[in-house]
Amino acid sequence: MNTKQEAVILVSCPDQLGLVAHLTAALHEAGCNILDAAQYTDTLTNVFIQRIHISCPLTHNTKTLQKHLQPIISEFQMKIHIRWTDETKRVAIFVSKEDHCLHDLLLLHRDGDLHCSIEMIISNHEDLHDIAKRFGVPFHHIPVLHSGDPNAEHQQIELLQTHSIDLVVLARYMRIFSDTFAQKFSEKIINIHHSFLPAFAGGKPYHQAFEKGVKLIGATAHYATAELDEGPIIEQGIIRVSHKDSIKEMIRKGRDIERTVLARAVRWHLEDRIIVHNNRAIVFS
Amino acid sequence: MNTKQEAVILVSCPDQLGLVAHLTAALHEAGCNILDAAQYTDTLTNVFIQRIHISCPLTHNTKTLQKHLQPIISEFQMKIHIRWTDETKRVAIFVSKEDHCLHDLLLLHRDGDLHCSIEMIISNHEDLHDIAKRFGVPFHHIPVLHSGDPNAEHQQIELLQTHSIDLVVLARYMRIFSDTFAQKFSEKIINIHHSFLPAFAGGKPYHQAFEKGVKLIGATAHYATAELDEGPIIEQGIIRVSHKDSIKEMIRKGRDIERTVLARAVRWHLEDRIIVHNNRAIVFS
Amino acid sequence: MNTKQEAVILVSCPDQLGLVAHLTAALHEAGCNILDAAQYTDTLTNVFIQRIHISCPLTHNTKTLQKHLQPIISEFQMKIHIRWTDETKRVAIFVSKEDHCLHDLLLLHRDGDLHCSIEMIISNHEDLHDIAKRFGVPFHHIPVLHSGDPNAEHQQIELLQTHSIDLVVLARYMRIFSDTFAQKFSEKIINIHHSFLPAFAGGKPYHQAFEKGVKLIGATAHYATAELDEGPIIEQGIIRVSHKDSIKEMIRKGRDIERTVLARAVRWHLEDRIIVHNNRAIVFS
Amino acid sequence: MNTKQEAVILVSCPDQLGLVAHLTAALHEAGCNILDAAQYTDTLTNVFIQRIHISCPLTHNTKTLQKHLQPIISEFQMKIHIRWTDETKRVAIFVSKEDHCLHDLLLLHRDGDLHCSIEMIISNHEDLHDIAKRFGVPFHHIPVLHSGDPNAEHQQIELLQTHSIDLVVLARYMRIFSDTFAQKFSEKIINIHHSFLPAFAGGKPYHQAFEKGVKLIGATAHYATAELDEGPIIEQGIIRVSHKDSIKEMIRKGRDIERTVLARAVRWHLEDRIIVHNNRAIVFS
Repeated sequence: MNTKQEAVILVSCPDQLGLVAHLTAALHEAGCNILDAAQYTDTLTNVFIQRIHISCPLTHNTKTLQKHLQPIISEFQMKIHIRWTDETKRVAIFVSKEDHCLHDLLLLHRDGDLHCSIEMIISNHEDLHDIAKRFGVPFHHIPVLHSGDPNAEHQQIELLQTHSIDLVVLARYMRIFSDTFAQKFSEKIINIHHSFLPAFAGGKPYHQAFEKGVKLIGATAHYATAELDEGPIIEQGIIRVSHKDSIKEMIRKGRDIERTVLARAVRWHLEDRIIVHNNRAIVFS
Repeated sequence: MNTKQEAVILVSCPDQLGLVAHLTAALHEAGCNILDAAQYTDTLTNVFIQRIHISCPLTHNTKTLQKHLQPIISEFQMKIHIRWTDETKRVAIFVSKEDHCLHDLLLLHRDGDLHCSIEMIISNHEDLHDIAKRFGVPFHHIPVLHSGDPNAEHQQIELLQTHSIDLVVLARYMRIFSDTFAQKFSEKIINIHHSFLPAFAGGKPYHQAFEKGVKLIGATAHYATAELDEGPIIEQGIIRVSHKDSIKEMIRKGRDIERTVLARAVRWHLEDRIIVHNNRAIVFS
Repeated sequence: MNTKQEAVILVSCPDQLGLVAHLTAALHEAGCNILDAAQYTDTLTNVFIQRIHISCPLTHNTKTLQKHLQPIISEFQMKIHIRWTDETKRVAIFVSKEDHCLHDLLLLHRDGDLHCSIEMIISNHEDLHDIAKRFGVPFHHIPVLHSGDPNAEHQQIELLQTHSIDLVVLARYMRIFSDTFAQKFSEKIINIHHSFLPAFAGGKPYHQAFEKGVKLIGATAHYATAELDEGPIIEQGIIRVSHKDSIKEMIRKGRDIERTVLARAVRWHLEDRIIVHNNRAIVFS
Repeated sequence: MNTKQEAVILVSCPDQLGLVAHLTAALHEAGCNILDAAQYTDTLTNVFIQRIHISCPLTHNTKTLQKHLQPIISEFQMKIHIRWTDETKRVAIFVSKEDHCLHDLLLLHRDGDLHCSIEMIISNHEDLHDIAKRFGVPFHHIPVLHSGDPNAEHQQIELLQTHSIDLVVLARYMRIFSDTFAQKFSEKIINIHHSFLPAFAGGKPYHQAFEKGVKLIGATAHYATAELDEGPIIEQGIIRVSHKDSIKEMIRKGRDIERTVLARAVRWHLEDRIIVHNNRAIVFS
């Protein structure tokens, strides 16, 4: 029988002497063993960031652990986030009509490669209802009259909140949210944009890429913010194209890299490997 | 003894039925053998583009060959460009202070991997005089007060014209030319920009990339036009970075990809593998 | 209404003067227009290889076209292969238990990105029956006692021949065929091997890769021959790994590259872009 | 004035509870601050490996620091390696006739991007004497009659030992060492092999790659051991090729990746980022 449980702790605070030693000691005294640790100091803002993967006795919970760490949290002005690895995050996937990213996420989840529960699929179209059914995921069709449509957003938010959704994945969802929506789920929405941002932000990036005659096309997974295609970049990938590739070919080639890049970003988020600092995503991959 | 010579013919014209057959037949009648051929039809503009590598008797020259092809040139409104492979292009390299691209070009040339003669190095600084000397290439120090400085450009143009320069390579030359200069050497100036264009055009691209938190940095070789960093893209490459990479690290990592991408673009130009059509570079690589 | 049809012609013959001109002229006289052409001369064996994409009047068929070309076929000892682009190849996919490659092929096909008909899925296990059903593809479960099991091969061959299968795709089929089987479908079986061949041929390549501590893992699509993992390589791809990746992680990361590499190879085969010469696959991509 | 110095500590020992906490505490008590730390636990052998980058008072030296850590070194059976970052490693570069890797290393060193002193260049040929002179590095021409030639090795070892060389870089040195030589400098010789090992070990890897018709060629930097091309792999890279690439083209394309991969491996070694465990190189990059 398992007598241990595991947690990931994300820490950020002003950089100071002795930080790591005190934190490590406090964890040790609390009966925790450090399985993995990675750190980063942002020298521009003098901020220290650490991800610690611990195992600890089953008797602990977030409260008791936090209590143990309270003295050093206060002393070092730490922001701390604890997640137990047996808590699975609750995910909602937004889609429109394209299903390659959705399919990939559903298959990865089925194979045990995405540690989460996929609670629902929300779409502004009916097209992908069938896939949702096949994988046994509730599907909600919420028509959207225009980007930021308040009626639609109202229904979406209610669904997300009722089901305590932890992460929204925009798997080629072709609508933009209002500021209110974006802020309500700050750093909890991952979008895949089908270009190498900041090149070709906005609509029809492959058309833009074709016009420009680029020799590589890309995909960018980022946290969605109120400003379109401007949130912290989590991951990027590229694929080679040539003058021979029509826009249609670019779209086809791009699919491979979109789904891979999105899946990687989602996995890192689910494993608490990302801290956003100063609008940059620190990824402990 | 060689009784044959080789040439590369670049053809572009409105797409029509029978084009390839007539051109091939005309070349055959002129005693030419086709060693390699590659073609592309731009469906948007209905323009046919072909690169043909031929061998033909030593008795031919550009005039006689053109005379042979004249009937079909007229019939199909062909633009045609013939270059004999034993004619080496005359190259001038522009540099400022950084030498990694320059070094790479000089070493490739020394090893016989760039089919051209490097006639001169022109710089707005004295720093790289020494390398020029070592490789036996004339070095011209032409101070430039500001981008587009007419005095400097006057001297540069005179040098380039006096020495019948066919190709200007901007190997990390940190000044911008005037429209006049750019137009005088249209499609004869290759620049390396240290970003994945159109992302991060303009100055200090690695600083921009760092701020933006991108996960890949790139380099773009393109024909220089009057509009900064806007000319037809010949080749691009990327390299992975992470939050751990400082701007200094990005600059170091970027060097590897800058020199490789520039060298590839220069080689393709020297081998007449590029045709610019509709502001896109068609590369028969 | 369409008054034209298109075909792809693959040509190989001893290299000789005037080849391209004569072939082009013959096609022109037959009323064919050349839409695209790519050629390659193997200098070691002095063999000329060409892929020509033509359009021609609807009145033509393979016989009439071949008749037109007969004089130069004889003169130049050409081997010629004509395929009309409206003829779709008939494909059988072999699988075992893993479905990521199968899924990818079925989705690409559904989206119109693989020009073929998928006639059947054959498996030595029942596991993937469900997916076959979902996509409406007949599924044949043929248990295989051991690699090369003659009973199983007998049933497989009968199925393939009865349905006039043009291409067999081994989408992570974990059994090896007998020589007889491999020869019967020579250059008609595409296999995906989950390593960067010739490294890690044979079983459990990710385990081998882990042991060896490689920093990149790969996938190789190749024509299957009697000798295991030795047939002509069509396409390869790689993905980066580190010491942190367990074998399980490697397997997961490898899936992305396996399916992409296999799909690319299958598409090229379906578009008649591959000629095998001297055990090397010439790919006109 | 600097009142602090920095060191990198590499630790390996059997994995046990409380390890990190005790080590961190001991370093803290010794007045050290942890600037960066990365760890890895090999689950097969149950071995814990850590790289710690510290700053500490100038009063410390290796002896005093080791004394402070002695109790936990004993308790946890730690193997520990301390290097002060102001100690530069002493490097010898071995070459034959090709200079692209040598050039790259010398330029990186000149630009301050390789933290070491390049003490000498040793070659079995005279060809690269000139470059050595240009960069002011002593050049030793030691003819080698055959791989493992005891006379030559005797001279080489004497030179390396007299000059207290810490790292031998084989920058396309085309001779193999005897077991004695390899063992004397175990984990202190980095070789660049011009293939994606374990594919194409041994001689003429590009010829092997051409014959095999691979679509990617690679380069591998590894620690040299007595067994040819078998030592722990530090880094690998690849570049795409096609049927059009002759062996000569492959050699040219390969150069770009060889020098980049070698330089990366050398940098990581100089920054004490590599620990070899169980014949696998753990790289904390």
